[in-house]
Amino acid sequence: MIPLESLPTSTPNLSSLASLLAAQLNAVNVCILEKMQSPVTLIPQIAGYLVSLGGKRLRPLLTIATAELCGYEGKRHIDLAACVEFIHTATLLHDDVVDESSLRRGKATANALWSNQASVLVGDFLFSRAFELMVADGSLDVLRILSQASSAIAEGEVMQLTSSHDLGLGQETYLKIIGAKTARLFSAATEVGAVVAEADDSQRKALSKFGHTLGIAFQLKDDVLDYAADQEKLGKAIGDDFREGQVTLPVILAYEKGADRAFWQEAFIGGIRDAGALAHAIRLLKESGALLKTKHIAQEFVEEALDCLKMFPESSLKTALQDLAYFSIHREV
Amino acid sequence: MIPLESLPTSTPNLSSLASLLAAQLNAVNVCILEKMQSPVTLIPQIAGYLVSLGGKRLRPLLTIATAELCGYEGKRHIDLAACVEFIHTATLLHDDVVDESSLRRGKATANALWSNQASVLVGDFLFSRAFELMVADGSLDVLRILSQASSAIAEGEVMQLTSSHDLGLGQETYLKIIGAKTARLFSAATEVGAVVAEADDSQRKALSKFGHTLGIAFQLKDDVLDYAADQEKLGKAIGDDFREGQVTLPVILAYEKGADRAFWQEAFIGGIRDAGALAHAIRLLKESGALLKTKHIAQEFVEEALDCLKMFPESSLKTALQDLAYFSIHREV
Repeated sequence: MIPLESLPTSTPNLSSLASLLAAQLNAVNVCILEKMQSPVTLIPQIAGYLVSLGGKRLRPLLTIATAELCGYEGKRHIDLAACVEFIHTATLLHDDVVDESSLRRGKATANALWSNQASVLVGDFLFSRAFELMVADGSLDVLRILSQASSAIAEGEVMQLTSSHDLGLGQETYLKIIGAKTARLFSAATEVGAVVAEADDSQRKALSKFGHTLGIAFQLKDDVLDYAADQEKLGKAIGDDFREGQVTLPVILAYEKGADRAFWQEAFIGGIRDAGALAHAIRLLKESGALLKTKHIAQEFVEEALDCLKMFPESSLKTALQDLAYFSIHREV
Repeated sequence: MIPLESLPTSTPNLSSLASLLAAQLNAVNVCILEKMQSPVTLIPQIAGYLVSLGGKRLRPLLTIATAELCGYEGKRHIDLAACVEFIHTATLLHDDVVDESSLRRGKATANALWSNQASVLVGDFLFSRAFELMVADGSLDVLRILSQASSAIAEGEVMQLTSSHDLGLGQETYLKIIGAKTARLFSAATEVGAVVAEADDSQRKALSKFGHTLGIAFQLKDDVLDYAADQEKLGKAIGDDFREGQVTLPVILAYEKGADRAFWQEAFIGGIRDAGALAHAIRLLKESGALLKTKHIAQEFVEEALDCLKMFPESSLKTALQDLAYFSIHREV
């Protein structure tokens, strides 16, 4: 295994990619604000609230970065990056309804501020608007990638819904679920970048895989952070997954190892998930090595992601994408 | 005004259209069953339940009928009719969550049998699958029509959500809401038929308008039936709109006329909508002439719909579409 810890020269973060692509990201934000408009005022109100919360804009950055990495010099990737963000925002709106969440990253969710009803419908609007934008762009290839990704995301969410309390889910099935639910939009975002740049097939495949492996690494790191983050830096309470009864990889691994199975059953099947239970869960996850093993698996995906970039010539953009890969597992937020 | 009552030779119903197009409708059903499959078993379970409930299959029938009315002899309209039905089914799933319904046409809704969560996600899946199917067909024109229709439907639903208790909504705004929420998918269904047949612009416009006016007529008749149907024939309880606090055109017209405004306010703003209130509402709607006026407005839309068909040569298909227009306002279910 490559000693990933030692590779980046400085603390990896998103800023190198975001500053390299600041002008493009700004254009994406302008496009998002313009295209979420509607005479039905509740729609831009809710969509505007979500935009104002910020977020990393990771997926649109990936579309822009991969297009330009493949030498694209036009402007189509701006609107397509906005499409990707619209789909992401629509899934967030529906996710919060499905998970009955009232907080996301420490801020009130749209369903808590408005209603589940509004969140469902505004999600539908943003989703449809994304397809309108893609049609205006005119590439059937892009439409295929993002419609297939959208079905796969919904499938992944349903899979998670029906198996969220299943302690015996297993690593393979779990990776399949997050591959659909999370990583699929990452890989669609990077593949769209390659398509808009008319990259050759090997580049397209490499970038799609880069997105997929990066997406898995991000999700696994999220899973770890939910039990191990510095609460102050994270900007939200830890233990969300636990309280919601979401079985994630650290729990699956700890349960597989046999560490206090009665406790895990009581928590995820019996529903006893109070503060004391969370503290015990964190202790078990640390002592059993489950958090560390999850980190190592995430690291393997990052290594795969870095491999996918090898075929591209050195450039500041490539370095920034490598930094992003490190960031996916070394971040504290 | 044409004396619509006297025109059709027999009781108008859907059967002439459905029997003329029986083979095509069967092919649509096969396509729906095939394309709703997923390794995630809950998806075909829920989608299959909705398919098993039957329904009129009105929208796919419209796509098939209009395509063939324009001389289309290929097979593309089958898959596209299935797309239209998928979008319709997705909006039904989300509607029932938004309206917190547990019954639709006398049968348990999917959210009541499974959960709101499953309904949101399976709706998302069917919606995405519709776009996948359209991409496979390959017409950007069709994709444009149905993505724009989908945004408009969501806008219409949000409009209705934010104004459902508004007694002073007015006829014009109400027609705008149902134009988006209901009629837009009808007009998209008929326009797609024209597009797949490569019909000329005047035919395409006429058929789009036929769908729109027919959709409005259907919705207004639904509004009337909800207060005036023969409960046994309708196959479900009347008064659903009233109980859910949905202000529809009959109520708007009765309120405008000034008939017992205090009662309407108590019902729709005060929330007193029990069986006694429903009985009083029905009495007021009949005595004020609001139900009759709604029927007349629906009739005007049917006349517009019939006008749109004038440019097409006589054929059994054209007669069946005319019958459908009569059926929209003369049906009892």
